[in-house]
Order: sequence, then C-alpha cells, then structure tokens
Amino acid sequence: MSVELVFSVLDFVGVFFFALSGGILAARKTLDPFGAAIVGAAAGMGGGTLRDLFLGALPVFWVDAPAYLGVAVVAALVGYYGSTIVRGERGARQRALAWADAAGLSVFTVIGAEAGLAAGAHWSIAMLTGVMSAAFGGLIRDVIVNDVPLVLRAEIYALASLAGAGVYVAAIALGLSGEIAAPATAALVFALRGAAMIFNWTLPPVSKLD
Amino acid sequence: MSVELVFSVLDFVGVFFFALSGGILAARKTLDPFGAAIVGAAAGMGGGTLRDLFLGALPVFWVDAPAYLGVAVVAALVGYYGSTIVRGERGARQRALAWADAAGLSVFTVIGAEAGLAAGAHWSIAMLTGVMSAAFGGLIRDVIVNDVPLVLRAEIYALASLAGAGVYVAAIALGLSGEIAAPATAALVFALRGAAMIFNWTLPPVSKLD
Amino acid sequence: MSVELVFSVLDFVGVFFFALSGGILAARKTLDPFGAAIVGAAAGMGGGTLRDLFLGALPVFWVDAPAYLGVAVVAALVGYYGSTIVRGERGARQRALAWADAAGLSVFTVIGAEAGLAAGAHWSIAMLTGVMSAAFGGLIRDVIVNDVPLVLRAEIYALASLAGAGVYVAAIALGLSGEIAAPATAALVFALRGAAMIFNWTLPPVSKLD
Repeated sequence: MSVELVFSVLDFVGVFFFALSGGILAARKTLDPFGAAIVGAAAGMGGGTLRDLFLGALPVFWVDAPAYLGVAVVAALVGYYGSTIVRGERGARQRALAWADAAGLSVFTVIGAEAGLAAGAHWSIAMLTGVMSAAFGGLIRDVIVNDVPLVLRAEIYALASLAGAGVYVAAIALGLSGEIAAPATAALVFALRGAAMIFNWTLPPVSKLD
Repeated sequence: MSVELVFSVLDFVGVFFFALSGGILAARKTLDPFGAAIVGAAAGMGGGTLRDLFLGALPVFWVDAPAYLGVAVVAALVGYYGSTIVRGERGARQRALAWADAAGLSVFTVIGAEAGLAAGAHWSIAMLTGVMSAAFGGLIRDVIVNDVPLVLRAEIYALASLAGAGVYVAAIALGLSGEIAAPATAALVFALRGAAMIFNWTLPPVSKLD
Repeated sequence: MSVELVFSVLDFVGVFFFALSGGILAARKTLDPFGAAIVGAAAGMGGGTLRDLFLGALPVFWVDAPAYLGVAVVAALVGYYGSTIVRGERGARQRALAWADAAGLSVFTVIGAEAGLAAGAHWSIAMLTGVMSAAFGGLIRDVIVNDVPLVLRAEIYALASLAGAGVYVAAIALGLSGEIAAPATAALVFALRGAAMIFNWTLPPVSKLD
C-alpha cells in the first residue's frame, strides 16, 4: 500500500469510530436520530477540522470529500440504533463508547502528528497537532451534550495520545517510512489506552483541596 | 432586487433574529447587559463565522463589515431588555426565544447552502454547510450559558434545516434563480419549524435504555 | 524596546497568566496533570488562536513558535501544583485564579485590538478582536470544565476589556506609539478589572424575571 492510501484508510477508520462513539452517547442522552447524526459528525470530523483550521489547510478536508460526511452519519446511526441492542446494560454501552473512542484517538493521533510534520512545524508542535486532532473530536462531542469531556476525566487518555505522537515524530525523524510508522504507532496508542482502561491506570491528581 | 441584495438582506435578518434569541436567553440567565451583547453576538455571528472558516473565506465576513456587529449588539439588547416586558411570563419568553431562533435558522440554512455551492462544493456538503451555518449560532449560544443545545433537544430542528438545504440545492440545480429560491426556501424552513413547534411534531428517539 | 519586542513580551505574559488560571481551575476540579496542561494550553493559547483564525492569519501563531506551548504548559503546571500550597483555602485559590485571569485579559485586549488594526479592520472591529482575544481563552477554559464562563458571571469583565480596546484604538488613531499605548492600556484594563473585583462593581442585570 502507498503512504497516501495508508493515511486515507486510517482517516476513515478514525472518523468512523469517533462518529460511532458520538452515536452511542446520543442514544444514552435520548437525543433524536438527527441529534445523533450531528453529535456523530461533530465527533468524527471535529478533530480533523480543527487541525486543518490551525494549520491553514483550507477549505477543511471534508469540503472536497463528501465521503467523510457519509461515513460519519452512517457510523453515528449504527452507534445510535446499535445502543438499543444492549438496552439495560449501561456498563456494556459505556465500554463500547470508550473503546470506539480509543480507536478514534489512536488513529487521529498519528494523522494529526503527520499533518503537523507535513506543514513543516517543530516536532513539539507536531505532537500538539497530533494530540489535538485526537482529543478534540471527543471533547466537542462531550461539550455539546454537556458532559465533562472524557479527555479530562479519563485515566491515561491525553497521555496515551501524547506518547504516541512522540513515538511517531521520533520514528519519522529516524527515517522510518510513514506507511509502517503510522499503523504501528496507532496500534501502540490503542494498546496504551486499552491497558489503561482494563487495568484502571491513573495519574495521581492533586488530592481534594478543600 | 438583485441576488446580492436578497442575500445581504437575508444575512442581516438572520443575524438580527439569532442575536435577539441570545439576548432573551441572557435575560433568563440574569447575565448583565454586556454578557447579553456577547451571547447575542456569538449567536448572531457564530454560524456565519464557522461557515467562512470551514470554506476558507478569510478574514471572516464581519471583519470587513462592522454593520453586522452593530446589528447583533442592538438585537441582543432589544431581546435582553424586551424580556422584562413579559416579566413573570416564562412561557411567553421561551416562545419568543424559540420563534426568533426559528427565523434565524430559516435564513442561515439558505445562506449557508448558497455559500457551499458558491465554493464549488458537492451538493451534500452544501447541505451540510447550510445546516451548520444555521445550527451553530444557536448551539454556541446554548453551550456558552451551559444549556443542552436547542438543536439537540428540539423537535424537527436540524431536520427542518436539512430539508430546506436539500430543497435549495435542488432548486438551484434545476436552474431556479437564487433571488427566488432563497426567500422561498427560507419561508419553507420557517413554516416547517414553526409547524413542528405548534403541533409538537417529534422524531422518535430511542426509548430509555436503562 | 522596539514595538515588536513590547508586543512579544506582552503576548507571552498573557499566555502565561491565562494558562496559570487554567491550571488553578484544573486543580479545583481535581483533573489529572495532563488535564491541567490541556485546560491551561486552551486558556493560554485559545484567544490568540481565535484571533488568527478570524483574521485569516494562518497557520495560527503557535504553529511556528513552539515557545508559546512551552510557556503555557509550564504555567498550567505551576498553577496546578501551586494550588496545593493554599489547600483548604478555597477563597485564596479563587482570588488567585481571578487575578491571573485579569492579567491575561488586560494584555490580550491590547494585542487583539492591535491585530485588528494591523489587519486594516474598522475601529469597531479592532475593538471586537481585542475583546474576543481577551475573553475567549477564559471562556473556552470554563466551557471545557463545564462552568458558566467567568466572562458571563463576572462584574465589569467584558466591559473593562471593551473600555481598554476603545482607549487603545483611540490612542493609536491620535498618533501614539504602540510601545507606549500598549503597556499603558493593558495597565488600565488591569486596574479597571482589579478595582471591579476589589470594590465589587457590578452592572445592573435585569432583575429576576419569574
């Protein structure tokens, strides 16, 4: 596979899983199907939109590629109506949401970091565009429905993304090809985030202040 | 009237009504007058700002046209102080907010779809820019004051906008002039949304999951 | 000092204090250290990012200048861990947050207004870019953690910024040099906002409507 194809596939994978998480969240909040499509599209396309805005790559990616919108809406509705299958099992649905979110996070970390490098930014900024692309879709999904964002509540979430962005930037600097480094790094982020969920890894917050 | 004049008038109408809705909401939340101006300006100018950002039409529309800011601030203060007239009548104020919002929604649906077409985007993307321009002002208005956005709570809200965006895109594809299609489509969206409010039309959400 | 140096120093001062306020807020909400870095970076760099987006100055300022990110993260962590020093003293921490926010507000008012003027915008729009640059960082900080934004709750907040933006625009129109007008105006905004906090100045909101 060519590098372009690898990134294109990853991009659609990320849009799909974040939009899926948006649809699941919309079902939990008992929004109507159009609300689900909106939350899903915002979650799936939000991170990449922000990345394009900040880097000045305008119009943003989905304006000339309507397939992204199609994938996002389909994924959102799959998550929305699929949630009824696990009716009554709140825990199962929350886990499904968290794993879909983890898949999107993994992929967008790499795509965002690559976009930063491609724009000629400093490695630290490429790491930031990686983390932002990865975290922002979920952030806007949660802010819209008035939850405290998962990125701020979850154990080892931004940190998993940051670690992956750092590994990716280092791998490219060391001369690795993007078509190998990209899926490998995405898998690493997914493994880190998944392990954090399974084993309840946490960073110590400051203890209660009052 | 020329096409440009029609769109310019519609644009100011949309800014006025969304800013008005922002002022009414600010009064309900007992913000101070400056808070009202901020919420009103964000509601009135937010949707068009997002549209310009996504399509890469920078600087955004109000940077070179200070009249929009003037209209938004005046409308916000009209909504804010006008709310005291219906003091004690919570229902009347909520209806005023919803109808002002519906007027803004109708107009911005058409303007956003037209902007997408003018930028050469696919018809599905023009529909998206229509819905986003229409929905985002109200969304940011509600997120700022920490409400679950009307677009996610309301019956037939995004759907009315989507239907209008589809009709507009189809009308232009069939060769209709924008100066006829634009006001006609805006009227259609307003009628749809208004009927949904009056008759309590709803889309079935998934039923309670837990 | 040259004009460029004055604005550059002010810019870092603003990023520092807003990021500091984000770190303090993150500690109050018992987020983990990475959450603090995210909220701090969003608060410190959010206002300038929005300013660059609206004026079309892309890529945004921090893409080519990683030092801003460094300052924001350090300031956020200082605010986060520094909050433990005043453990139990909720009032002291809230005051620290409010004063850090006031320092950021003062500086970004001037920088935002200058950016508007430099882009050739109308004086009223330069005032708007001043207020928006100043208010948006704190707004996004508060929205992310699900608080009603300080800009909407606080006494004489947007108004202090607006007054400063007006004074700055007038001073430049009267031929004053930016290297004098900028720090003087920032000091004025800080004094206004500080006096409002100390003496509890308020604008009369509409009284309770229900």
